[in-house]
Amino acid sequence: MGTLSVFLDVPLAPSTDIPLDAYKADPSSLKVCLGHADTDEVWIPPVVKRILLQIPEDPTLNHEYLPELGILEFTTAAMKLVIGKESRAAGIQTIGGTGAVWTGAEFLHRWYKPSNCTPTTVLLAEHHLENLGCIFQVAGFTDIRTYRYWNPERLTRQNQCNAFSFLPLGLCRFLQERHLFPFFDVPAQGLASGNLDRDAWAVRHFVDRGFEILCAQSFSRIFGLYDERIGNLIVVTKNNQTLIKILSQLAKQISVTWLGPTSLGARVISMVLTSPALLYEWKQSLKALVKRIMLVREKLKEKLRILGTPGSWEHLTAQSGVYSFIGLLPSQVEFLAKEKHIYLLSNGQINICSINAKNLDYVAQSIHEAIMSTSHQDQSVTVRIYSSPTHVSKSESFY
Amino acid sequence: MGTLSVFLDVPLAPSTDIPLDAYKADPSSLKVCLGHADTDEVWIPPVVKRILLQIPEDPTLNHEYLPELGILEFTTAAMKLVIGKESRAAGIQTIGGTGAVWTGAEFLHRWYKPSNCTPTTVLLAEHHLENLGCIFQVAGFTDIRTYRYWNPERLTRQNQCNAFSFLPLGLCRFLQERHLFPFFDVPAQGLASGNLDRDAWAVRHFVDRGFEILCAQSFSRIFGLYDERIGNLIVVTKNNQTLIKILSQLAKQISVTWLGPTSLGARVISMVLTSPALLYEWKQSLKALVKRIMLVREKLKEKLRILGTPGSWEHLTAQSGVYSFIGLLPSQVEFLAKEKHIYLLSNGQINICSINAKNLDYVAQSIHEAIMSTSHQDQSVTVRIYSSPTHVSKSESFY
Repeated sequence: MGTLSVFLDVPLAPSTDIPLDAYKADPSSLKVCLGHADTDEVWIPPVVKRILLQIPEDPTLNHEYLPELGILEFTTAAMKLVIGKESRAAGIQTIGGTGAVWTGAEFLHRWYKPSNCTPTTVLLAEHHLENLGCIFQVAGFTDIRTYRYWNPERLTRQNQCNAFSFLPLGLCRFLQERHLFPFFDVPAQGLASGNLDRDAWAVRHFVDRGFEILCAQSFSRIFGLYDERIGNLIVVTKNNQTLIKILSQLAKQISVTWLGPTSLGARVISMVLTSPALLYEWKQSLKALVKRIMLVREKLKEKLRILGTPGSWEHLTAQSGVYSFIGLLPSQVEFLAKEKHIYLLSNGQINICSINAKNLDYVAQSIHEAIMSTSHQDQSVTVRIYSSPTHVSKSESFY
Repeated sequence: MGTLSVFLDVPLAPSTDIPLDAYKADPSSLKVCLGHADTDEVWIPPVVKRILLQIPEDPTLNHEYLPELGILEFTTAAMKLVIGKESRAAGIQTIGGTGAVWTGAEFLHRWYKPSNCTPTTVLLAEHHLENLGCIFQVAGFTDIRTYRYWNPERLTRQNQCNAFSFLPLGLCRFLQERHLFPFFDVPAQGLASGNLDRDAWAVRHFVDRGFEILCAQSFSRIFGLYDERIGNLIVVTKNNQTLIKILSQLAKQISVTWLGPTSLGARVISMVLTSPALLYEWKQSLKALVKRIMLVREKLKEKLRILGTPGSWEHLTAQSGVYSFIGLLPSQVEFLAKEKHIYLLSNGQINICSINAKNLDYVAQSIHEAIMSTSHQDQSVTVRIYSSPTHVSKSESFY
């Protein structure tokens, strides 16, 4: 055999933006990963913990292969959670929310031919470009464009409809006229408002208007089962005959990728969703978590106010949900990693659940120092970011 | 909204050959699925059952995301099980053996450029055309060819080297000279001979000769954990620098498909493989299963001999492992499904574990009737199938 590898020219892939590896490698006892829930304190609803103990004892369950499309009881209950009804819709169980997006993207690239040609363009919310954009690119879409959902100048979420304000039409009408196919991503239903129905309104609005849609659902966050990789791809079509044909193609596609999904998480979730008592308990846990998230947002804002940190932090409580754009510059994110052992995505998005009683003071103090130490270097950008007039002047007067 | 679906032209995908759905839908109490282990009696090693009860009680384990490439302890132990050593090799945890083949096929299509062009041809064992062929096709290989591994005329497995006898060279030299990249599939290491090392000799032979290889490993059958989807893709390269680059690309690829693998099965398996006591116990369970499989093979052969079923059934005990080509014609397979509620793949391959004390007599009697009722219709084919001279004449004299 020769000594040269046939893979000599394979380049090193650029590492992803998620700073989890750097966090794990850091030996400091002060370290905090704001991109992720604290690994020692991953939230898991008590009802889920209980069922996880019951399942291995259940003699009626075995470890046979599941069908390609998963456990029907799970996919139906999961689909109803978003859509609210069953007509002309079905779910297929996937390997996590990523698997649902991947399956949908592959399917669309293969079968969505609005004018007898394969579409090449995908329009994504700007902050999803890195994670979701790659999936659509690998699936064959060559033109990945973004629309702005998070407005860094105003530190607020832009209304989705406003994001399309370049056309004087509602979003539904805009999609319809441009032959755009709506593909929703529901990564944590219930964690925005604490109410499952309220968080699903956008999807239901499209379904009620007669749209065909795809919708990727993830259960990792709302059931605390990240490692079980439980996702669901919801397909809503015009009629059930088309639905059956689509499901047959999706089953084929899955049979050549992972053959079938995993059972444990889907069993836990379908037990919760189909039992009124367990469902009630889980909803209460979700509500309590959302309350806790809002409390952390309020406490962080208050700490920063007391420290006199330049800038407005109103956006911390104006936003809701687990993820928050904290409003830091890439140089400030870098400062936190290098000087403070605090890791977060370079776009400044953090997971609120990663802040707890133990690290709140340290995180607030470090954010304060990051802003104090770097804001004079990036003044032009700083002024752009802190656009609320009173606070910009406060920031300027600080030096 | 218009009333026509944008997916109007999506065709119904042809159903796969696995007769599990027909089996499940059959209300008869006599039904047997020979394509699959009996769902009521899926073999699971006692040590695995025990660990499955322990894991949910373990307070040191959480449900955080796993890294894209899986649990290092698992992938290393799994890789050593096949390769026997660690040098210039690594494993990556996948969603089942199918996920390992898919990941490898996608990787090869993207990065294997033996003469600066992307290869389009894949050479597969004939009976793997349907399941593995589809994976390579979807990955982008356009020319899927087969070699004969199972010889239906002789009812024996052909030696892999003989399958390439059209060239007067050994298989290693043949692959090397033709720039063929060896990709092994190890779906049930240990279940052929009862000895893990013996079943891995072919892979080790190539590694010892200095080859770069890929090897897909599945743990579904040997740990009885079909629904946990535990696979491993082993990469053996020329050197560790190349290995690191390959792993970075594989991590990227996985991050856009399923993000990361599942934990439960990998935890169970790494606990077994890294504990000498548990490993010993598991190996004993495997040996006992292999013994049981050989006993079933012997009993079925004996039953058919007593019934005077035409044909030679020596191949039942000459072959080893869970899967066996039983030597039935498609028309006989159809007879079994329609008249006897017995389901198997149309190529006549069965899972020996699906035969047990409860159904052995019924299965043997039904095979006998299938052959008696159809062999006169397919005489020309029958003669080809039963090529052992004495038995062909016995079969012919029967009518």
